[in-house]
Amino acid sequence: MGKVYVVGMGPGKRDGMTIRAAKALEESDLIIGYTVYVDLLREEYQSKELLATGMRQEKERCSLCISKAGEGKTVSLVCSGDAGVYGMASLLLEMNKDSDVEIEVIPGVTAALSGSALLGAPLSGDFCVVSLSDNLTPWEMIERRLRSAALGDFPLAIYNPCSKSRPEHLKKALTILSEYMDGERPCGIARNIGRDDEKVQVCTLNELGSLDIDMFTTVFIGCSDTVIVNGRLVTPRGYMSKV
Amino acid sequence: MGKVYVVGMGPGKRDGMTIRAAKALEESDLIIGYTVYVDLLREEYQSKELLATGMRQEKERCSLCISKAGEGKTVSLVCSGDAGVYGMASLLLEMNKDSDVEIEVIPGVTAALSGSALLGAPLSGDFCVVSLSDNLTPWEMIERRLRSAALGDFPLAIYNPCSKSRPEHLKKALTILSEYMDGERPCGIARNIGRDDEKVQVCTLNELGSLDIDMFTTVFIGCSDTVIVNGRLVTPRGYMSKV
Repeated sequence: MGKVYVVGMGPGKRDGMTIRAAKALEESDLIIGYTVYVDLLREEYQSKELLATGMRQEKERCSLCISKAGEGKTVSLVCSGDAGVYGMASLLLEMNKDSDVEIEVIPGVTAALSGSALLGAPLSGDFCVVSLSDNLTPWEMIERRLRSAALGDFPLAIYNPCSKSRPEHLKKALTILSEYMDGERPCGIARNIGRDDEKVQVCTLNELGSLDIDMFTTVFIGCSDTVIVNGRLVTPRGYMSKV
Repeated sequence: MGKVYVVGMGPGKRDGMTIRAAKALEESDLIIGYTVYVDLLREEYQSKELLATGMRQEKERCSLCISKAGEGKTVSLVCSGDAGVYGMASLLLEMNKDSDVEIEVIPGVTAALSGSALLGAPLSGDFCVVSLSDNLTPWEMIERRLRSAALGDFPLAIYNPCSKSRPEHLKKALTILSEYMDGERPCGIARNIGRDDEKVQVCTLNELGSLDIDMFTTVFIGCSDTVIVNGRLVTPRGYMSKV
């Protein structure tokens, strides 16, 4: 019997993955993932079998992993960022319910953390992550979570702020958040994290609405304590005000 | 002029850090951190200067980094987990306000992600992280955030669930959460993540109150969708119910 590693690759380039993730890929007979991620690995892992499936092929991808592991292969199922957070670990574990394939989840640096690091330290303590994609989550639930995050005064990382099929989601979210905070709230965006055309920008809540934001952008909304220090977005933890 | 890397070391052992974090340590003249973390690095980085400061010495630690970088040294300030989330990045950026030392934040795998991976995939989409330590955050804010997380039906990772000086915090938190969810809610704990005596356990909300939980434990509270599959804690993303 083989094994499946679900590998969080971190942001962008190889440097962003953990040493443990690199070892799992090295140990695998077969690397499976979404076309775009597998293409990034093709040059480095020429000796491995690489299989790519397209968008919306998530069940097929997991099913392939279970079947290849059943044949005795060691398989890495690669995910950008973390293996769990908006990754494939949960679906694979669900689909493995009636099999007994060994599954090891290898965590990775999700965009909330890698984007924060580029901006400064907006997520320095308690925080929330919310995706605006309503592909799998009803918009009512997304709105409920945005309102709850604002009520809790959490710094917030927003994934999938918009895409071609839902260009208005970020604007709807900003309208909701504006009920709870003023337009000068420090915010920021990080786009193409870890890639050659990586770009970050610190701004206010009001300014977010007019920025060029796409599906490769992660948006950060500060909490009431968040400030801009030397151009970096920072949520103080409270050490400076503690006597 | 030198430079400070704030390095998220990930959980426990070297394997949990990113390749980029390992390169930053290698490139540094000096590694600074909390005694326990620096001791873990002592053997591997014998050629480096290592400086440790104790608990509650956070300002002194950051000040030392800025002053050593001012002398032209390349310094790594090491943090367990991520560099930002409950790490030193925000304080260092605050304290660097009137200096012009270059600071690069290198993100790492925080316990919410590494603990999730061990348990299965409880944080598979939107989620919240809340610390129960009231050292820097008033308990009223902690309670507000717990209530907001429950109102938003977020899966929740709880850091610093209790310590010797605040043994009752987790019980108080569980009492609050019980107002919003029933006692059979799937939950889990991960202790000493990435270390030799690593331990994970899947349980219910009711059972959490009687487990052996300390300051090295991260607690996971499922959302209303979270289930236990083959002993793993899993929050489905919705692929299986999507037609």
